[in-house]
Amino acid sequence: MKNYYSTANINFAEIEKEAAKLLQELFPLCRSLSGDGVRKTYDVLKNVTDFNLTEIPSGKKVFSWTIPPEWNIKDAFIADKEKIKIVDFKNSNLHVINYSIPIDTMITGKELKPHLFTLPELPEAIPYRTTYYKRDWGFCLCYKDYQKINDSEIYRVKIDSALTKGSMTMGDYIVRGTSKKEFLITAYSCHPSMANDCISGVIIWILLLKILKNCALKNSYRFVIGPETIGAIAYIHEHHRALKHVSGGFVTTTAGGTGKVGYKKSFNDTSEVDRATREALVKLNGEILSYPFSLQGSDERQYSAPGLRIPTVTITKDKYYEYKEYHTSLDNLDFVTSSQLMETFSVYVRVIQYLEQNVTYKSRTPYCEPHLGSLGLYPTTGGAINPTNDKSDTGTITTDDIKAMTWILFYGDGKHDLLNIAQLTGIPFESIYLNYRRLEKHSLLQETR
Amino acid sequence: MKNYYSTANINFAEIEKEAAKLLQELFPLCRSLSGDGVRKTYDVLKNVTDFNLTEIPSGKKVFSWTIPPEWNIKDAFIADKEKIKIVDFKNSNLHVINYSIPIDTMITGKELKPHLFTLPELPEAIPYRTTYYKRDWGFCLCYKDYQKINDSEIYRVKIDSALTKGSMTMGDYIVRGTSKKEFLITAYSCHPSMANDCISGVIIWILLLKILKNCALKNSYRFVIGPETIGAIAYIHEHHRALKHVSGGFVTTTAGGTGKVGYKKSFNDTSEVDRATREALVKLNGEILSYPFSLQGSDERQYSAPGLRIPTVTITKDKYYEYKEYHTSLDNLDFVTSSQLMETFSVYVRVIQYLEQNVTYKSRTPYCEPHLGSLGLYPTTGGAINPTNDKSDTGTITTDDIKAMTWILFYGDGKHDLLNIAQLTGIPFESIYLNYRRLEKHSLLQETR
Amino acid sequence: MKNYYSTANINFAEIEKEAAKLLQELFPLCRSLSGDGVRKTYDVLKNVTDFNLTEIPSGKKVFSWTIPPEWNIKDAFIADKEKIKIVDFKNSNLHVINYSIPIDTMITGKELKPHLFTLPELPEAIPYRTTYYKRDWGFCLCYKDYQKINDSEIYRVKIDSALTKGSMTMGDYIVRGTSKKEFLITAYSCHPSMANDCISGVIIWILLLKILKNCALKNSYRFVIGPETIGAIAYIHEHHRALKHVSGGFVTTTAGGTGKVGYKKSFNDTSEVDRATREALVKLNGEILSYPFSLQGSDERQYSAPGLRIPTVTITKDKYYEYKEYHTSLDNLDFVTSSQLMETFSVYVRVIQYLEQNVTYKSRTPYCEPHLGSLGLYPTTGGAINPTNDKSDTGTITTDDIKAMTWILFYGDGKHDLLNIAQLTGIPFESIYLNYRRLEKHSLLQETR
Repeated sequence: MKNYYSTANINFAEIEKEAAKLLQELFPLCRSLSGDGVRKTYDVLKNVTDFNLTEIPSGKKVFSWTIPPEWNIKDAFIADKEKIKIVDFKNSNLHVINYSIPIDTMITGKELKPHLFTLPELPEAIPYRTTYYKRDWGFCLCYKDYQKINDSEIYRVKIDSALTKGSMTMGDYIVRGTSKKEFLITAYSCHPSMANDCISGVIIWILLLKILKNCALKNSYRFVIGPETIGAIAYIHEHHRALKHVSGGFVTTTAGGTGKVGYKKSFNDTSEVDRATREALVKLNGEILSYPFSLQGSDERQYSAPGLRIPTVTITKDKYYEYKEYHTSLDNLDFVTSSQLMETFSVYVRVIQYLEQNVTYKSRTPYCEPHLGSLGLYPTTGGAINPTNDKSDTGTITTDDIKAMTWILFYGDGKHDLLNIAQLTGIPFESIYLNYRRLEKHSLLQETR
Repeated sequence: MKNYYSTANINFAEIEKEAAKLLQELFPLCRSLSGDGVRKTYDVLKNVTDFNLTEIPSGKKVFSWTIPPEWNIKDAFIADKEKIKIVDFKNSNLHVINYSIPIDTMITGKELKPHLFTLPELPEAIPYRTTYYKRDWGFCLCYKDYQKINDSEIYRVKIDSALTKGSMTMGDYIVRGTSKKEFLITAYSCHPSMANDCISGVIIWILLLKILKNCALKNSYRFVIGPETIGAIAYIHEHHRALKHVSGGFVTTTAGGTGKVGYKKSFNDTSEVDRATREALVKLNGEILSYPFSLQGSDERQYSAPGLRIPTVTITKDKYYEYKEYHTSLDNLDFVTSSQLMETFSVYVRVIQYLEQNVTYKSRTPYCEPHLGSLGLYPTTGGAINPTNDKSDTGTITTDDIKAMTWILFYGDGKHDLLNIAQLTGIPFESIYLNYRRLEKHSLLQETR
Repeated sequence: MKNYYSTANINFAEIEKEAAKLLQELFPLCRSLSGDGVRKTYDVLKNVTDFNLTEIPSGKKVFSWTIPPEWNIKDAFIADKEKIKIVDFKNSNLHVINYSIPIDTMITGKELKPHLFTLPELPEAIPYRTTYYKRDWGFCLCYKDYQKINDSEIYRVKIDSALTKGSMTMGDYIVRGTSKKEFLITAYSCHPSMANDCISGVIIWILLLKILKNCALKNSYRFVIGPETIGAIAYIHEHHRALKHVSGGFVTTTAGGTGKVGYKKSFNDTSEVDRATREALVKLNGEILSYPFSLQGSDERQYSAPGLRIPTVTITKDKYYEYKEYHTSLDNLDFVTSSQLMETFSVYVRVIQYLEQNVTYKSRTPYCEPHLGSLGLYPTTGGAINPTNDKSDTGTITTDDIKAMTWILFYGDGKHDLLNIAQLTGIPFESIYLNYRRLEKHSLLQETR
């Protein structure tokens, strides 16, 4: 018999240790849309808790997209005439443009340069680039290494990669609750050695899955992991009927940086996931840092499409685009720590608690207030301005509790949920929920579906 | 044949005299949820104008509430060993906690103190306390008297009260109008000797009833008076089917203090009663002092419940909670005067005038403006910027009238009422109504229901 | 085979020449509700491009209005005893109150003065006045001339006018497009020698008609010209069934003054014509000067009536009431120039372009974004923050284009039109339209009706 989900039952210290271990294990792997780096990533995650894997064959059509060939890479370098390696894939798997075709040739620096990507404004950083849908090759390197390339010199350029008819690997798992309400929690697994984008999100995804699998739940949670964009599209292709019933979603990414915790709004910021997220941010951080919905984003682009319209938020600690290390080799384990990750994780687990506790309900005494006094929920001495500060005999019932109870009864018309009432009244969700339970225990309220 | 309701026909000087007399008569009575103090209060009111009385028996169930026993009190005191009365009910009927059980005993000051209520921050004031739903007893006293009580001394404590199987008295009266629209005007009669809370509201209630009974009316007005909360609940229990058709309501209370006239909003501040109240406040006071809707209030708590949802406002002069004398013996005839009461009364009668005059209507010339000129409603010389300042031959038609008439015709789609148009255009309601009548007289408009 | 409408195909220099010629030709004519001055005005306009004329007989009932008699005037003057003309119609046809009855009499200055209109605050200006619906006569004159009138002196007063059973002349033309959507473009032709009010609007009306007749169009445009108010009412009387399907309208007037280009909002400022107008003003002027909807206006008063509710805007350069020369002889060809007129004209032609290009549509890939990369609409190298500034191979596709395309796809739910998306995203309409066309060319979008 599982316990009901509660943040109070979560051992945050133990989880932080697990997160720290995962950061170390996952960071070095060379992930991509497909290939063994992704499979190794999933192996590491399955050690935390199990989920389903699916291999989607190369060449399969998903809407207007085609699953690309599988990509694997063993080695790559640029060497000068003295065979000194100026760029060596062994040092960073960002050095090779993701999905580069194999090559082994001798070319001049001048011929090589169009294949090189660098960031003059961050001369120590290797940029991250991909060429998923165009057969091409290239290297990414620090600007200071780029400057060593001499136009007239001959270089040996080798990429020992393979693009083969294989498959693209995806993971999913549905944690079932008792109600028909379902939320989506999705992460992407395609970014090589960068810590905030994307492994911080992958770690949050697997830790949430582990926790939720061990709880008795009201809502269902659909966990999906795969490469960004093409993974979401392939998943939607197979599951769009089921996804139409999803009430809201989360893309877990960029969750462990040095900046402030914030959130990217869904396309409808009055949605239940948006409201739960804001309530949790106020509770934990005392303020709400929010980013507008935009389509320069992640898989919410797909889940928000006209046919699905799933309001999808991302809780971030340094949102993508907002930190200078983004999409470079500087997005590493110096930038991301397990304790930073736990700040965002705490918000996610609080948001899920609110989603579990949120209900729509009706008052069973619709024509007037019930007689709370006879239930021990109201002070028996009347007339005082702050009744419960004045000889109250209601035990733990405070003036704020009475306020909360009367508002909950007032809004009991089947059109409001508890998150909504918290935001309309300014009373913290915890107090609204506690007092909802008080009233519900006395059969004064009835949950509606 | 009665006259139509009009503030112009109201003799305010005569009414102020009547209000002054009522303040003197009603203030000393020891009211409560039930008992002879309430019956005497209703006798005084019936001398102004008649209404129906109902006795609801003790023990009757009304929703989750039970009508309490009837309470009456003859005398009460605390006396010291020299038989000197430290507290004497004859001096103030606030001295005894309302609904105290009878007692006659000798106890130490230490045993007595848990039964004493005092206000150290207002050392000259006797607080007001009740114990309606718990069988208990107690005294309220000035802090300076409280300080005389010695823990080790013996006191005689006597309350000569009786809690008996009797009844709770309520009053009501429906003044019928010609339309199906109905408004609720309710007051509560349960507070002993306090002037602003509640007799100011009781006086406004009876004076409005007297005026409305003497007029030909469009709307019906349902007048209800009884103890706060339990009275409203008992009334709703018998009348909830009829109350579902009520368009809006007023709780008359705290209407005669020294502060500014203002109003407490209903839960829906776009309701007709809210709009009429704001329009009247602007007209009479040039500004709107408003208090948000809250459930720390009076009987609007019950009438606003999900099953009824009657938008209910209170026009106040020092709203409850907003003046330091609230719920103490300082809320007396020094604090409340008949002339202060008339300020609030004037707003109520103006609001009712607006509700009587407000209509929803359609233009009978929906495809264009009618030819107002041939009806003498438009200047015959065209081309001037302010046509009516320039050789107008329309008599009393001003530029503002023309503006009002064209807006009234424009909004004549059956979706707007006159109060709404006043607020959309910024034109005073009086001008909107006057010009509505001008147009309606020429059969250019048709009232819709 | 006509070309599609495009501002790029318009020869503004040639049109400005035509506008300059029209100003000269139309200014001197003595227009009124009816009569030969109006017919001459229409003759001049028909030289630009042809349209239909209708003669509506005097005495015909249109709703609550009656078509007035036809008015013509040959001469008029006020002469002193030395037969020196103090006021001479030959100098300005504003001198006679429009629709004055004929008179030829000798009266004292004192008797004459009630028939004289003057503007002491603009002593050099002749005011404009009418007496359409009251049989009266009068003169308008400069204040300095008015001061010469001596109460006791005898004056000869002659107005050689005629009010006869004739007809009121109106013009109209419908330029048909391929869709069912229709817009109204209306001007009024009743003001004598004033340049901004009304011939600037008449000139814009005829030039728009000429341009639109020469284009292949999507929308239909209903052109109506006639006297203000009575003309619109007569037109609505005959055409109200057809007008119910009109999506929006324009009253062209006061379009050539010295002030800023702005626009008067319709009663619903989220209407398509309002949104197109604001978008064009931002595009051409970098700002939006707007005037609230009011009923002190022109024929939008009739077209906005409850039975039609056509949102109708006016693009102005010095809106009526906003310039001191309004409705006086100072509203002349010194105040209005063809180049000023062209500023407003440019806004109108831009607005029409937006209305032609605006569509409501659905995405044909509702479950996710389509694979833009394979269509050359997305950069093939991924990972860069500003992808198209970084080795793009998409040719002319910019980062802004990608933003526009993803928003267009996102909003492709059949509930948004392109103007709406431009305003929601802040992306200029031109870019939204260009990228809509890019996507539509690849069958990714489908126009809905």
